Amino acid sequence: VGVLDSNSAAIDQHGLDPAKLIARKRSTGRVGDASLSTRDVLRGVESDVVVELTPGTLDGEPAFSHMKAAIGFSKNVVTANKMPLALHYKELLGEAKRRNVRILYSACVGGGLPVLEFGSQCAKAEPVDKIEGVVNATTNYILSEMERGVKYDRALKRAQDLGYAEPDPSFDVDGIDAACKIVILANHVMGTQFRLKDVRPLRGIGGVTSARVSRAKRNGKALRLVATASKSLRVGPVEVDERSPLAARGRSHAVVFHCRYSGERTIMGSGAGSVTTSLGVLRDLISLAEGKAA
Amino acid sequence: VGVLDSNSAAIDQHGLDPAKLIARKRSTGRVGDASLSTRDVLRGVESDVVVELTPGTLDGEPAFSHMKAAIGFSKNVVTANKMPLALHYKELLGEAKRRNVRILYSACVGGGLPVLEFGSQCAKAEPVDKIEGVVNATTNYILSEMERGVKYDRALKRAQDLGYAEPDPSFDVDGIDAACKIVILANHVMGTQFRLKDVRPLRGIGGVTSARVSRAKRNGKALRLVATASKSLRVGPVEVDERSPLAARGRSHAVVFHCRYSGERTIMGSGAGSVTTSLGVLRDLISLAEGKAA
Repeated sequence: VGVLDSNSAAIDQHGLDPAKLIARKRSTGRVGDASLSTRDVLRGVESDVVVELTPGTLDGEPAFSHMKAAIGFSKNVVTANKMPLALHYKELLGEAKRRNVRILYSACVGGGLPVLEFGSQCAKAEPVDKIEGVVNATTNYILSEMERGVKYDRALKRAQDLGYAEPDPSFDVDGIDAACKIVILANHVMGTQFRLKDVRPLRGIGGVTSARVSRAKRNGKALRLVATASKSLRVGPVEVDERSPLAARGRSHAVVFHCRYSGERTIMGSGAGSVTTSLGVLRDLISLAEGKAA
Repeated sequence: VGVLDSNSAAIDQHGLDPAKLIARKRSTGRVGDASLSTRDVLRGVESDVVVELTPGTLDGEPAFSHMKAAIGFSKNVVTANKMPLALHYKELLGEAKRRNVRILYSACVGGGLPVLEFGSQCAKAEPVDKIEGVVNATTNYILSEMERGVKYDRALKRAQDLGYAEPDPSFDVDGIDAACKIVILANHVMGTQFRLKDVRPLRGIGGVTSARVSRAKRNGKALRLVATASKSLRVGPVEVDERSPLAARGRSHAVVFHCRYSGERTIMGSGAGSVTTSLGVLRDLISLAEGKAA
């Protein structure tokens, strides 16, 4: 009933036609009317859910304001936007609870892999004491290339050329993306209330040399950007055993849940990008329709 | 409110004390009154759920009759009993639906690992076209031992001594356990209505020689008992790449879901036995209490 892009909006309380919206966007560069604001849409359209998919930013805006507004209008929220949750998890979840709506964010962690849902299942009957994850596909691609002998700068350039890394790659290579994800993962699965500033140390892969990658490899290890949650949170390069699921190569995700009684439970999957993220969003929408939280 | 063992039953509509039941079982060999039958308990006790945990049998009895009776009395069922579901999946699920109760069976597949729940999440937003799994911990232990140079008979004996394999190991080593699990997994995740007799071929590890295991290893492969579901079901020894999750060693489970758009999603975990199975049962009970199906 409402669709926005960065410079316009389309509204039709009787339902919009996706094919027409796409055609209009392609021919005019706008999905709808340039005079309509986000707030007009949030306030003016009757909807059960607002899907928040604006680009990620370091301060979480405008996504955070959109989510707050949507919840304020008693609408459910589905989002792939990590930063608002990493900065304001407690506030957003608390406000959603008070308004008796849900905020679902499966697409935030794992590139479409149902990591959060799996973690919740693991935590249902026993405590999860620790979580370790390779949760950033871009840095994992770069480290995997370096294992094959490619230098850091060249591997980064290749990741950018392939569209895996942004022109400004700092969000990925400095570990911020992984840090956001471990905050959300820990809070969702372990019931904590961590925030991004609690991730200490937070180290990326910028300082990783080819020599260090080679040394690890000679010792039967693989250097990976690992995000860890236990009593505290940390992100940084770690040498993992090359037989460990965390040593998976390429644009992979792997998360190990250390369960108190049943031991290690691992989830793995390859890929990142628009298709898998969209599947995460779709899964949340289906969960909402089924009346279940993820 | 009601507990049965193989030769007695205890009933108290105000609630039983687990500590007292255990003490009585230890001192007398019975949990309660020898004159009470299963049907007395199913009919005579008000309960929301019947937990069916009788030993596995080739004909699925008496578990199947217990489940049918419980559903007939409009009680939910939680079970770790594979065979009734592998033989009568459609009938049991259909009858539960007609009676507006649920039958949950998370403990049947994966030794406590939430495989069914994970598969459901994968299937929520896209089709799962194929499932491949190492789902029997006993045979995986034996094959892992054989990789280390232990002969089949010796590895089986060791599995029996450690309590991993039954005195009659045929249910595991002939592949029947794995076949039951792939039937349940396919039906749950892919919406099929397979039955045990649809698993063709169904081969175990009885004919596997040390020479065959060694040959696979020399070629960078690992011989594993793999259960596969796509348009059809099959179980048998397969050479998998030693880097594949399916090559995991020891008493491990690994299941790969081939999702149409997002590719391979894998779940792995070690262990089997009473603790992990109990956690699966507990997870189902919590899901019931939360009003959600697994």
